[in-house]
Amino acid sequence: MSTRIFKIKKNILNANDSLAQNLRNLFSRKNIRVINFVSSPGSGKTELVTVLATTLIKKGLHVCIIVGDLATDNDAVRLRRSGADTCQINTHGNCHLDATMVKKSLKALDWTRADILLIENVGNLVCPASYDLGEHMRVVLMSVTEGEDKPSKYPTIFNSSDICVLSKIDLAAAACFDEKRAVQNIKNISPDIKIIKTSAKKGTGINNLIHALVHERKTVF
Amino acid sequence: MSTRIFKIKKNILNANDSLAQNLRNLFSRKNIRVINFVSSPGSGKTELVTVLATTLIKKGLHVCIIVGDLATDNDAVRLRRSGADTCQINTHGNCHLDATMVKKSLKALDWTRADILLIENVGNLVCPASYDLGEHMRVVLMSVTEGEDKPSKYPTIFNSSDICVLSKIDLAAAACFDEKRAVQNIKNISPDIKIIKTSAKKGTGINNLIHALVHERKTVF
Repeated sequence: MSTRIFKIKKNILNANDSLAQNLRNLFSRKNIRVINFVSSPGSGKTELVTVLATTLIKKGLHVCIIVGDLATDNDAVRLRRSGADTCQINTHGNCHLDATMVKKSLKALDWTRADILLIENVGNLVCPASYDLGEHMRVVLMSVTEGEDKPSKYPTIFNSSDICVLSKIDLAAAACFDEKRAVQNIKNISPDIKIIKTSAKKGTGINNLIHALVHERKTVF
Repeated sequence: MSTRIFKIKKNILNANDSLAQNLRNLFSRKNIRVINFVSSPGSGKTELVTVLATTLIKKGLHVCIIVGDLATDNDAVRLRRSGADTCQINTHGNCHLDATMVKKSLKALDWTRADILLIENVGNLVCPASYDLGEHMRVVLMSVTEGEDKPSKYPTIFNSSDICVLSKIDLAAAACFDEKRAVQNIKNISPDIKIIKTSAKKGTGINNLIHALVHERKTVF
């Protein structure tokens, strides 16, 4: 990368970090817990966030969702079925959400009433790692069908996350998933990350995940 | 995106396209067929390219492979087992290969002897779509575990590809894969794309894919 492009990229990231910190302060003051879900395309973010939102709403919480995609509002249509107040960000080809997009999308939500704001990022293991969205917690999904080596190959997104969800655990046997090796690879990159196994389809691990998201204190920010 | 950033990005893409066209002309003059494999992380590119290379080498062809990753040389180690002359490009966090990286990596390969050069791109459905690498054919993989909606959500990578491989077809039943809906979604975005079902693990569809890669004429470039 040329020095000029590097400087421009660094300035963009600095501006994003500053806005993200302001958003996080605002969310904290209003007692709204914000979670950013990242993963490769097809790891099951939408299904997991839908099940989480449905469960949280049943528990009496007010849930908002922001979902980012390059094109279509398919995910927002699915997510709204949970009953959550949902806003779709169409990135028009951009490969990640940023703090400005999150700030703008708040206008479409009744967010000040929310107890929890779930953000489903664009499916991509690279660029979303560099963009703080003002979240209190970042959750990276890795489905058991993707192979066990993703943490070594995409280290930044794993070591910037607080929780790693091993999703689609119901497919582990069919996919010959080597859980021991996967956990070792995750821990090699991010020794303190919490690992939670889920199947959104079967309802496995959802309560464990909710406990970690809602009740455990975030230490990094 | 600001006008300044947009112009810089456009200039980078124009420079890449020009170099890529030069590379493609060079490969064509030397009668080397070049294929660029793209997909999200964990769709099975490495396993498929390994099986393809092994089969092509058994048929007496000289095969070279270039593989891109953000970190590690795990994939190159796996790919070399096929017997192919293999070069790993470590992108150090960059989310796609570009024509300059391909040109540089040729120095590490005995590429002028090759009949076929297989390029395994970084696992990412967004940014690799915009970077021509000088290939004659682009193949996008979509594994049956990723859901059927990826073509609608990542249209550029699907409508810039010549072949769509439905990979891990052996997991279709376990993943409740709706093939009819997936094919419809692919055709909606890219009506003329060729769709080939494969399982690298079981050897399914490999000969069909080789026929399409080696024997069918490329029409776009």
